[in-house]
Amino acid sequence: MTASYRLSEIAAQLGGRLLGDAEVRISQIASLEAAQPDQISFLTNSKYRAQLAGTRAGALILGEADADATELPRIISDNPYAYFAKVSAMLNPLPVVEPGIHPGAVIGAGAKIDATASIAATAVIGAGATIGAHSVIGEGCCIGTKVVIGCRARLYPRVVVYHGCVIGDDLIAHSGVVIGADGFGIAMDQGHWIKIPQIGRVVIGNDVEIGANTTIDRGALDDTVIEDGVKLDNQIQIAHNVRIGAHTAIAGCAGIAGSTTIGRYCLIGGGAGISGHLQIADHVEIAAFTLIGKSIREAGSFTGAFPFAKTEDWRRNSVHLRHLDELAGRIRKLEQQLNSLSAESLKPES
Amino acid sequence: MTASYRLSEIAAQLGGRLLGDAEVRISQIASLEAAQPDQISFLTNSKYRAQLAGTRAGALILGEADADATELPRIISDNPYAYFAKVSAMLNPLPVVEPGIHPGAVIGAGAKIDATASIAATAVIGAGATIGAHSVIGEGCCIGTKVVIGCRARLYPRVVVYHGCVIGDDLIAHSGVVIGADGFGIAMDQGHWIKIPQIGRVVIGNDVEIGANTTIDRGALDDTVIEDGVKLDNQIQIAHNVRIGAHTAIAGCAGIAGSTTIGRYCLIGGGAGISGHLQIADHVEIAAFTLIGKSIREAGSFTGAFPFAKTEDWRRNSVHLRHLDELAGRIRKLEQQLNSLSAESLKPES
Amino acid sequence: MTASYRLSEIAAQLGGRLLGDAEVRISQIASLEAAQPDQISFLTNSKYRAQLAGTRAGALILGEADADATELPRIISDNPYAYFAKVSAMLNPLPVVEPGIHPGAVIGAGAKIDATASIAATAVIGAGATIGAHSVIGEGCCIGTKVVIGCRARLYPRVVVYHGCVIGDDLIAHSGVVIGADGFGIAMDQGHWIKIPQIGRVVIGNDVEIGANTTIDRGALDDTVIEDGVKLDNQIQIAHNVRIGAHTAIAGCAGIAGSTTIGRYCLIGGGAGISGHLQIADHVEIAAFTLIGKSIREAGSFTGAFPFAKTEDWRRNSVHLRHLDELAGRIRKLEQQLNSLSAESLKPES
Repeated sequence: MTASYRLSEIAAQLGGRLLGDAEVRISQIASLEAAQPDQISFLTNSKYRAQLAGTRAGALILGEADADATELPRIISDNPYAYFAKVSAMLNPLPVVEPGIHPGAVIGAGAKIDATASIAATAVIGAGATIGAHSVIGEGCCIGTKVVIGCRARLYPRVVVYHGCVIGDDLIAHSGVVIGADGFGIAMDQGHWIKIPQIGRVVIGNDVEIGANTTIDRGALDDTVIEDGVKLDNQIQIAHNVRIGAHTAIAGCAGIAGSTTIGRYCLIGGGAGISGHLQIADHVEIAAFTLIGKSIREAGSFTGAFPFAKTEDWRRNSVHLRHLDELAGRIRKLEQQLNSLSAESLKPES
Repeated sequence: MTASYRLSEIAAQLGGRLLGDAEVRISQIASLEAAQPDQISFLTNSKYRAQLAGTRAGALILGEADADATELPRIISDNPYAYFAKVSAMLNPLPVVEPGIHPGAVIGAGAKIDATASIAATAVIGAGATIGAHSVIGEGCCIGTKVVIGCRARLYPRVVVYHGCVIGDDLIAHSGVVIGADGFGIAMDQGHWIKIPQIGRVVIGNDVEIGANTTIDRGALDDTVIEDGVKLDNQIQIAHNVRIGAHTAIAGCAGIAGSTTIGRYCLIGGGAGISGHLQIADHVEIAAFTLIGKSIREAGSFTGAFPFAKTEDWRRNSVHLRHLDELAGRIRKLEQQLNSLSAESLKPES
Repeated sequence: MTASYRLSEIAAQLGGRLLGDAEVRISQIASLEAAQPDQISFLTNSKYRAQLAGTRAGALILGEADADATELPRIISDNPYAYFAKVSAMLNPLPVVEPGIHPGAVIGAGAKIDATASIAATAVIGAGATIGAHSVIGEGCCIGTKVVIGCRARLYPRVVVYHGCVIGDDLIAHSGVVIGADGFGIAMDQGHWIKIPQIGRVVIGNDVEIGANTTIDRGALDDTVIEDGVKLDNQIQIAHNVRIGAHTAIAGCAGIAGSTTIGRYCLIGGGAGISGHLQIADHVEIAAFTLIGKSIREAGSFTGAFPFAKTEDWRRNSVHLRHLDELAGRIRKLEQQLNSLSAESLKPES
């Protein structure tokens, strides 16, 4: 965490237009309020431009519209938020992990572990599994038999990958993630549920991140598929045979039921749900706490949360929800009565 | 995974009426679209009968209504979905696990582990715990002191069972399951929460399956009880002193609050919630995302999700939810006015 | 679990007014229905006073209003529920854990582990971490580098604390808890999500309990903060840079989105959600399954769940939710028509 760069070095590496003192040395990134003179901050929305006034930051990342809003050293970028992410990555490289297999790890027969990979104490690698170059398997991880994990994966402690799952390069999986557990497949037979063996796998593309305690079930017959660049927050449940399109991002606590296909570049809010066997188009946005019960065929933004209120107001109003059909009927009747009454009153007097 | 059977052998073992070539050899089960000539497929709903046309499957499982819908070798069953489950189990037996205790497991004093059971590396078995015949305790599992687990249990890696819990035969518990953690019992005392010791256990019957990262809390005073044949999906929360009746199935992300009793053969949808201290009758179906806030005394189907819409439509409509009572009042007033107006206009002219 | 006390000893230690036989010996606490003569029970609500009649309890804890409702030996308290909690803690002390480091634990370089602390088999303590006096780190726990954990912590098996997090005294963390995983910070850049390094920590005060499989993400730039006395149930998601005020209690499956600040002494129901960047005042109560989408500036009770109904009734009524604005418009139009009609009919006849 001791990396530090001159502003000119940052601009040389990441691009952007540099204005002001190029020699200022930057050792960390911080919010406008908290930033110190050796730190760089950023403004992603001109609406908050007034906040620039009080900052003690040594330098700033700004959009074109705010290029002249300060005299502090600054880098002007088309996309200051992405630029901030890149600067932060420069300043906060991941800790270097020693390659090699800790003596407290347990390695199954025939596992192929790249010499540059790192396997931590108490991790278990199943028979015939493959771990790619520079991948880091944290403490307590359990990698099933014949699993394939690509290069530069970073599995934090206590990730489980069940047998046979296949994962691309650059996976980040946080603690408690479970990939490839059985999907919820049961059939009723004479008063008893029979288990349907889940013989598909989970197949994950490149550049996927999976948050803490998120679960992705293996397919019943075919595979569950997570395409390239998908980003999953914590505590998400992905059921069997779901397919999530590339670069879709899903916020915490969402759940996707079985056999649903989600398009590319979708944004799904926290606690949202999508029922099973649906198709969701590309570029669909789903608000938090919304249940999607039908397929969505076109891009757009969808919502279905119930608006909160003071409990006493909610009680007074929500009681009518059980009578909406009756209320609608009374409105229809009023309209009919009023129509005939108007007709009546318009009749020429005899 | 190399089991293969003649169609006649399948019918001999599982019953059903065999039509067509009894000698066709079947090595796997697959969907109608994906099936190959050495695979068997199935149709559970006559509505999709047209899909039989293109299949390359070597044989089919069909209901009586579809017995003549193809000339392919086929087995006719009253319940083709359950039949499919049984065929898949024949073709996909669980991998055989070597009995014995891995040297990397940690076994507490006085633990009774059946000689046919298997305890994996990094598993920890507490003092005085009992593990029944043919049970498999996966890597990283932690079984508390004096826990009793029956026969043929299969605990995938990283399941935790707290002290004193009692589990029947044939349990399947997926990774991340936590059985017997403390229930959420706190009492406010002069501005501070005091913890209420949770001295009950979790008691689980036979033939129960529990999905990944599901949690079942121990009872506060009495036990939390999961009866025979209950099937729980992933990421479910079962609070203290809940009782779930036999053969009830609960989909992912549902939550059951404390001291609620759920009947037998209920079906509870994904993300649904049931408040505390309620009684739910047998054979109740609860839709996804529905909060049940009152007891349900009779079998039936219940829903409470808010229907989603385009965000702009949702905004325009949902604003009225905060004024439903006022709207209802205005309808009532209109009815009164119209009534007196009608009465007026019907008065005989003087 | 063999502690037993005379009623007089309990009253001497915990206060309250003792009535009846002070010598009765109490070895456990139980519900009114289940209590045996060597057990003490309690009544927290006079409404259920009739239940006292049949109890076989050897003694009771009662409020002032019920002091004379029985002749059984009894202790009268201002707060019988808190008194019950205290008696239960007397009768059910936590099992004593042997101090010391199990040879199957893995301890990083420079870790400072108090001599009275206990580190279980398969636990991993990172380099430079600090574990305070009498703390118990369970099996399979992973404590990151430079983490600080105070005194008397009890971490049940398989808790993960990521690097650099700081935790006060008396923490209880149940199995599957993940503290300090990366927050969900991503920036879109030319069709790809870029990860924003999460360089803040999680900072947790004293006397906090965290339920099974709950996740608390580390801050993006600044810290995520859980203040003293906060109680979190199972399967809760706390996003990055959230601050939860002292003595707030949150029920299972709730989710708090990023950068939201929650006040002190709030009560948040099961499955509730709070959107990001909001301010919630002290003493706010939020009902189960409610999504809070705006800041709440004053104490009060808030609800937003949709009331459930029989599915056929729900269908008939909920269809109108998509037409509320139209219904409101029709009411408005009816009012206008009726007004002009009334004006018309009131006109003096010419």
